[in-house]
Amino acid sequence: MTGAAIRVSEIFGPTIQGEGVLIGQPTVFVRTGGCDYRCSWCDTLHAVDSEHREQWQPMSVEEIWMEVRRLSGGVPLTVSLSGGNPAIQPLGPLIDRGHGEGYRFALETQGSVARDWFADLDVLVVSPKPPSSGMETDFAKLDECLAMAAGMTVLKIVVFDDRDYAYAKDMAGRYPALPVYLQPGNHTPPPPDDESATVDIDGVMNRMLWLVDKVTGDKWFDARVLPQLHVLLWGNRRGV
Amino acid sequence: MTGAAIRVSEIFGPTIQGEGVLIGQPTVFVRTGGCDYRCSWCDTLHAVDSEHREQWQPMSVEEIWMEVRRLSGGVPLTVSLSGGNPAIQPLGPLIDRGHGEGYRFALETQGSVARDWFADLDVLVVSPKPPSSGMETDFAKLDECLAMAAGMTVLKIVVFDDRDYAYAKDMAGRYPALPVYLQPGNHTPPPPDDESATVDIDGVMNRMLWLVDKVTGDKWFDARVLPQLHVLLWGNRRGV
Repeated sequence: MTGAAIRVSEIFGPTIQGEGVLIGQPTVFVRTGGCDYRCSWCDTLHAVDSEHREQWQPMSVEEIWMEVRRLSGGVPLTVSLSGGNPAIQPLGPLIDRGHGEGYRFALETQGSVARDWFADLDVLVVSPKPPSSGMETDFAKLDECLAMAAGMTVLKIVVFDDRDYAYAKDMAGRYPALPVYLQPGNHTPPPPDDESATVDIDGVMNRMLWLVDKVTGDKWFDARVLPQLHVLLWGNRRGV
Repeated sequence: MTGAAIRVSEIFGPTIQGEGVLIGQPTVFVRTGGCDYRCSWCDTLHAVDSEHREQWQPMSVEEIWMEVRRLSGGVPLTVSLSGGNPAIQPLGPLIDRGHGEGYRFALETQGSVARDWFADLDVLVVSPKPPSSGMETDFAKLDECLAMAAGMTVLKIVVFDDRDYAYAKDMAGRYPALPVYLQPGNHTPPPPDDESATVDIDGVMNRMLWLVDKVTGDKWFDARVLPQLHVLLWGNRRGV
């Protein structure tokens, strides 16, 4: 294996991106294992909690790349780098490898760890975690992450309640140049070992309606409000 | 009344745009009355069928503009010009009026009638109708519409079945520079006089899943596949 190994939780697709700025766009996901956060409502604990690390495969850039190429049939698309927090993995060489074949890369991170290779991303989605997550935002780190980006850069903020909404508005005010995507939270995320766990779709939809009312009532017309399409389509099922 | 009157079916919002390139974005809809098409599965017959024309209000630019401004509280947003076919109404002066106050305009049309004021639109969504609609595409007119556009221009194609899908692929091949949005059709559109009519959400979702499988199986990675969010959120209810 040449270069540092990347800890991979799962590689799957092509499917459509279910949320945020690339919603509806075909993509292959590379989900890395490990996270420096522990959000109370984490919906990918199987890629976060080190209890599950025996399921994380150390893979070389070439091994990952061969799998992405196999899944996409060698036809360039946008690869979604997700986690966990993919920023804690050495992904720069993978991005270079894929760019060489015309693929594009989007990465989503909470913005707690900045990397110089963020500059190579086609899309950087920074998703700072609101109060309901139980996490504390490190604004210096967040600034650092955003300063690294050279491609399209957007904010995506999960909103469960009024405090989260206020947090999202503060974020938008702090970074007025960045498009903001608001996403109603899923209060029934999958336990890591039970992907057949039921999602309260009505509850998620009600939170979506509430959020639309908040945003339009506030005349916050620059925000975009989008649910997690994959949750509506596939519930908590993995690999889609 | 100065200038030609515009036939308006309804003005409502702010709500979010439920489909296509602006999905999730807050908007006020101006839905005009009248259409040169009669799609078999039309989901806005109340704005299409001249049986309902007594509900269409002839309004001046100023009257429409005052209502858009009232609904949006004077805060600029993107106004969605919809129908019916809004291209058969004299909308140029309305666009000018709104631009003067910092508003933006998106218009959706099937592409059967070209107008020079398309050049003033911020977003033009051309939605040619596939075989299941029962309509015949006039390619000369479609070309003319697209040639008028000066802002962001995208194709949106409703897909019910394999023939529609093949049509969509042909369209993408014909206009390779344009982003393509595919939208699963709603086979339970509202009758014009019954907005409480039930939508077969499971059926729409199944068609969405089928369409995702088609697109990813075909490696058509430039397409975007999006359902009608407003149908998932509000069913056939009007005014949202």
